[in-house]
Amino acid sequence: MSEENQLSDSDEELQEHLAEVQTLLARHKLVEDLVQRQEGPRHDLVGDIVHKQHLNELQRRLEPMHPADVAYILEALPLDERLIVWDLVKAERDGDILLEVSDAVRETLIESMAPTELVAAAESLDTDELADLVPDLPQDVVADVFKSLSAEEREQLRAAMSYPEESVGSIMDFDMVTVREDVTLEVVLRYLRLFDELPDHTDQLFVVDRDDRIKGVLPLNILLVNEVDVEVGALMQTEFVELEPDDLADEAAKAFERYDLVSAPVVDPAGKLVGRVTVNAVVDLIREEADSEQLAQAGLREEEDIFASVWDSVKNRWAWLAINLVTAFVASRVIGAFEGSIEKLVALAALMPIVAGIGGNSGNQTITMIVRAIAMGQVQPDAMRRLLRKELGVATINGLIWGGLLGIAAWWLYGSIALGAVMTAAMTLNLLLAASAGVGIPLLRERFGADPAVGGSVMITALTDSGGFFIFLGLATLFLM
Amino acid sequence: MSEENQLSDSDEELQEHLAEVQTLLARHKLVEDLVQRQEGPRHDLVGDIVHKQHLNELQRRLEPMHPADVAYILEALPLDERLIVWDLVKAERDGDILLEVSDAVRETLIESMAPTELVAAAESLDTDELADLVPDLPQDVVADVFKSLSAEEREQLRAAMSYPEESVGSIMDFDMVTVREDVTLEVVLRYLRLFDELPDHTDQLFVVDRDDRIKGVLPLNILLVNEVDVEVGALMQTEFVELEPDDLADEAAKAFERYDLVSAPVVDPAGKLVGRVTVNAVVDLIREEADSEQLAQAGLREEEDIFASVWDSVKNRWAWLAINLVTAFVASRVIGAFEGSIEKLVALAALMPIVAGIGGNSGNQTITMIVRAIAMGQVQPDAMRRLLRKELGVATINGLIWGGLLGIAAWWLYGSIALGAVMTAAMTLNLLLAASAGVGIPLLRERFGADPAVGGSVMITALTDSGGFFIFLGLATLFLM
Repeated sequence: MSEENQLSDSDEELQEHLAEVQTLLARHKLVEDLVQRQEGPRHDLVGDIVHKQHLNELQRRLEPMHPADVAYILEALPLDERLIVWDLVKAERDGDILLEVSDAVRETLIESMAPTELVAAAESLDTDELADLVPDLPQDVVADVFKSLSAEEREQLRAAMSYPEESVGSIMDFDMVTVREDVTLEVVLRYLRLFDELPDHTDQLFVVDRDDRIKGVLPLNILLVNEVDVEVGALMQTEFVELEPDDLADEAAKAFERYDLVSAPVVDPAGKLVGRVTVNAVVDLIREEADSEQLAQAGLREEEDIFASVWDSVKNRWAWLAINLVTAFVASRVIGAFEGSIEKLVALAALMPIVAGIGGNSGNQTITMIVRAIAMGQVQPDAMRRLLRKELGVATINGLIWGGLLGIAAWWLYGSIALGAVMTAAMTLNLLLAASAGVGIPLLRERFGADPAVGGSVMITALTDSGGFFIFLGLATLFLM
Repeated sequence: MSEENQLSDSDEELQEHLAEVQTLLARHKLVEDLVQRQEGPRHDLVGDIVHKQHLNELQRRLEPMHPADVAYILEALPLDERLIVWDLVKAERDGDILLEVSDAVRETLIESMAPTELVAAAESLDTDELADLVPDLPQDVVADVFKSLSAEEREQLRAAMSYPEESVGSIMDFDMVTVREDVTLEVVLRYLRLFDELPDHTDQLFVVDRDDRIKGVLPLNILLVNEVDVEVGALMQTEFVELEPDDLADEAAKAFERYDLVSAPVVDPAGKLVGRVTVNAVVDLIREEADSEQLAQAGLREEEDIFASVWDSVKNRWAWLAINLVTAFVASRVIGAFEGSIEKLVALAALMPIVAGIGGNSGNQTITMIVRAIAMGQVQPDAMRRLLRKELGVATINGLIWGGLLGIAAWWLYGSIALGAVMTAAMTLNLLLAASAGVGIPLLRERFGADPAVGGSVMITALTDSGGFFIFLGLATLFLM
């Protein structure tokens, strides 16, 4: 095991590596600046030696690092330094590292590479990994890579790329080890010794028949504790999680969580074993989903390279601000419709944002609950009515408590008990609106096949803003003017 | 393998199970209602038979289900039906199921159980699992369970419970298989055959010396592909991820993600092997973190049992609404200070929420970016200045574009070019405020040792609301009055 990578046990260790790299880069830059300022014949000679020294040292440090750690360092460096480090990384590791970096950083790295380098990097990957990289590669590079593949690999690549992004097919690999059910463990063990190494995450062997149809699975745990003269068929498990390439990757992830799986076979509708999903792909998927949800909630289209240009950031964020501007403008026009009332009673202007704001927050609490319940499949039509009733109950209590408190505050501030009553009534009504929308929006979205999670927060805030202004100013106009 | 559990490959299958259970429960309820309405001697006889029939059928369906699936069903049922199902589940599975259900549902189940049942359920668990359950159990039950443990188990339980909730110690188990480095693979294979089964997620054996100090790891993959006469010492890997019980669980999770691990040894500062962490604990951790972040963002203290009472929900949500009320009240008072200006120019009341709203959204985009960058350890002091510069650049561009657009809209609506100019200036200034706070708040929180993610969104929204009103109304008072 001479080519073991050096691994970082903690964030601290990883950050030490990063600091080392940054120190060396800073020294390198310093020398470069000095050399550039110097003129005359000494320039080339001394410069080149000292110059190279730091880069050599840097390369020596990068060599033993795991591709994931190199990726981390590349992501943490600004573009110019990133490309210096990238040039120093051994070409045979390019492919692995490209797989590990974030999409935004990958783009910057690929842009800096020559087509031949890209082809070499791509050729070092397995077909399932290649499938992830291909969409980011230039057309001509893809064509060259494709030519270099065997017929079987081409078929696998084509298959892997044909599945939609959120399907099991898109996260499966082809590294399965298969055995027949009529052989003894002795034979299986001998067969395994023919391998140089078993694929990562091999926790079970797949038992298939002559036509590659899956009959069962043989966990290594069972293989290892049984006598070698037993046949596979007597030990294999026939109850196991079986995924199909068109299943949602997200559902596969849930099965992994429920049953604590390390790997699971992927089987086509005819029962033929076509691939497997491993827990590391599932971990990546869960993390990515959590991330993209978090980003989406703040209206960021995708993860930003933190060293992206101002312009790239503006592009990443504009859509959300534009939507927001529209909804804010609508709310503003609602207020505009009541300018007469505000002119007469200017206290309304100061109080109205409270009604709108609390409604928005309460609505977001409800929608978060409901979206989660839907995602966990716990919402049956019957439960729905219960939930709505409960949320309306919560809204009524909150409206009376908080609205009552604010009503008293308004009465105390402006000396009008009628204004206080309008405040309390408006708060309660807007909370009821928020509760109904918080239950209704995700359900309607699901009914019409949209993802119940996306955009719910924007919609409910828009509704409780405009609605809150309308309810409060409307009640005030009715009862106070 | 006669006691294999039946597994659900997809959400659909799981929901079919749930629907079956619900149908049987409904039939059971129907019969019960009929029986209760009937009087006289036939009551007991017929009733009892038909009555029991559906429950027996239900029990038969529940029997082969995996504990995780039973947990799913329990979570999806309202309290009364949940307890009927819970009573039907075989007692020996109680412990496993209690581990799988959500905290809120676990409470309801534990409340329904007699102390002796709880002791029996707890005794069926491993010590690391027990450690997770103990905090929810009544004192006297814990004392009884403790008495039933062996000295070694007590020590393990005490150790597992002594680690803080977010440490590696709290997610480790004690199911490691250890070997010595001077034995051959032949011996190792014979040793493994002595087990009835290997612990779940055994992808590597831990190589230790006489004092349990770890020397290396022997992946099963390597064990299986090598000839049996080789010694462990010649094949074991000496570069491996080594966790300490006091490390942050979150950092361990990142190491699992970086290096695609299935298990990792936990080693005390003296180098002694004390436990191991497996990928299923990491998956649960990642999911829980994503969940609690999502809930916290909406101001929910914890996950709600969707069938919780209205009152439980009110308690879960009130803190956030109270905070919000305070910040909204402050913003309202800022507006109150400018009532004179609003009275003179009522258009200000309609336009001010736009300035505040866009500022809040833009600030949330910035803070999300920065919190993520900090979490990934990519923010060095040097990078900080760069980031602030970039965010201020983005804010200026957005302010001029969107603020300009709104300025034109205000001019067109109210026919005052000065009002339009004030609008544009206020938007730009509030976006600059949002950008500074979006960079500054998480950094300050981190500097003072607080979690940079928590509460950032509330603080920035409070700041951009009050700040936005102040900037807009202040500028208007200065230049338009």
